[in-house]
Amino acid sequence: MLLVYEQPLNEKIRNYLRIETVAAQVDAHSLFGHPGAELAFFRSLFELIELMERADLRTDILKDLERHLGQIAFWRQSENVDQTQLERLESQFKGLQQRLHGQARPGQLLKSDRFLGAVRQRMNIPGGYGNFDLPQLHFWQAKPAEEKTQEASQWRQELSPMVDSIRLLLTMLRETARWCDKMAMNGCYQESCEQGLELLRVQVKQEYGVYPTISAHRHRFTIHLINYETGKADTRNLPLRLSLSMEPK
Amino acid sequence: MLLVYEQPLNEKIRNYLRIETVAAQVDAHSLFGHPGAELAFFRSLFELIELMERADLRTDILKDLERHLGQIAFWRQSENVDQTQLERLESQFKGLQQRLHGQARPGQLLKSDRFLGAVRQRMNIPGGYGNFDLPQLHFWQAKPAEEKTQEASQWRQELSPMVDSIRLLLTMLRETARWCDKMAMNGCYQESCEQGLELLRVQVKQEYGVYPTISAHRHRFTIHLINYETGKADTRNLPLRLSLSMEPK
Repeated sequence: MLLVYEQPLNEKIRNYLRIETVAAQVDAHSLFGHPGAELAFFRSLFELIELMERADLRTDILKDLERHLGQIAFWRQSENVDQTQLERLESQFKGLQQRLHGQARPGQLLKSDRFLGAVRQRMNIPGGYGNFDLPQLHFWQAKPAEEKTQEASQWRQELSPMVDSIRLLLTMLRETARWCDKMAMNGCYQESCEQGLELLRVQVKQEYGVYPTISAHRHRFTIHLINYETGKADTRNLPLRLSLSMEPK
Repeated sequence: MLLVYEQPLNEKIRNYLRIETVAAQVDAHSLFGHPGAELAFFRSLFELIELMERADLRTDILKDLERHLGQIAFWRQSENVDQTQLERLESQFKGLQQRLHGQARPGQLLKSDRFLGAVRQRMNIPGGYGNFDLPQLHFWQAKPAEEKTQEASQWRQELSPMVDSIRLLLTMLRETARWCDKMAMNGCYQESCEQGLELLRVQVKQEYGVYPTISAHRHRFTIHLINYETGKADTRNLPLRLSLSMEPK
């Protein structure tokens, strides 16, 4: 099995990736189909809200959407491209832009919700969500699953313009880069790149029993393969695949 | 449907209940049968370790086990009791006592585990468990489910002497108290008790749409019924059931 590891090269991509990770957790628990799902759902929902509270996030996203729209407009002047596909992509970006502009302060409604506020406050206390700490949560958990799922999807919806935008931006970033075969010599691989790097992706076969640790900045990165069992550097020569997403010009 | 709410009346029972709640979360996610289970498992495991680090917890549990054994020895002198059942209970308590004595410092092994240490450190950062923050967790998550379940059960096992003891002590505390029918007048119920109270349990029908908030100390408690929808005091006369577990004499 091939495992993909990703390394962001700037703060913005780092935030995008973290939000993508947490949003996947929220979605994983939002159907309340397994025991313990409720607490795991609330925990990741509050984490998502916290990540989204960063002031410059919305500006970053809007700028990125705008940049992609400019790029699409440029491509559309060319005759050798699939206009239908570009049109579809354009309307996707424009739709997200509108949804984001339509929201004054994302997550504001969630923050003023009395029930969520009470639960969020107690979540930081270890075990502070039992039925004596939060009787209202105990009451809520006993509601029918459909009712809970519906409320959860309403809460989740308020964050979705930003989450959906980040997902699309990351997909674009990933899909516009190619995978190349490389070889890590003595468990180590290094490369320099003239154009600034935004996202580095590494594919390693799971059966080698190693995972990469990456130290990197925009113009240079070093990958060390660590043996999972020993926790130490693995000094074998091992093949890996790299995908480099560059900063926009 | 009847919902049971519990109110601990001292710090020891409060800790017992919180540990019981968190241990149930650990168990709920420990089979890795649903998406998102891994992170929810680690999160609750670290929470459980944190709760167990309290210095006086082990002493409290050992004292409680000893007290029950004394009580059982006293009952065994009487001829009108089921000796077989008492014997079974005695061996249960003695077994837990031995397991606790056999453990120098519970959770110590977990704390020295390199992998768990790395994951625990990152868990406090919102979204800090993605594949670039914790590549070793990404590697671990891709392992076969049986392997993960086995490791999880080994980690869990180190905490089980304390968790199992607390579960048995709470079961005894709950089962030795009777349920009595009461009526909350204007959404309020108050009672005084001469013997000190250790655990108060309240049963309310879910269909009334209320949950109790309880203010209490050892000799007196007040229950206010709060309307879930409005978040305000409910002033109806409503039936409820109470169960009072007293401090040992």
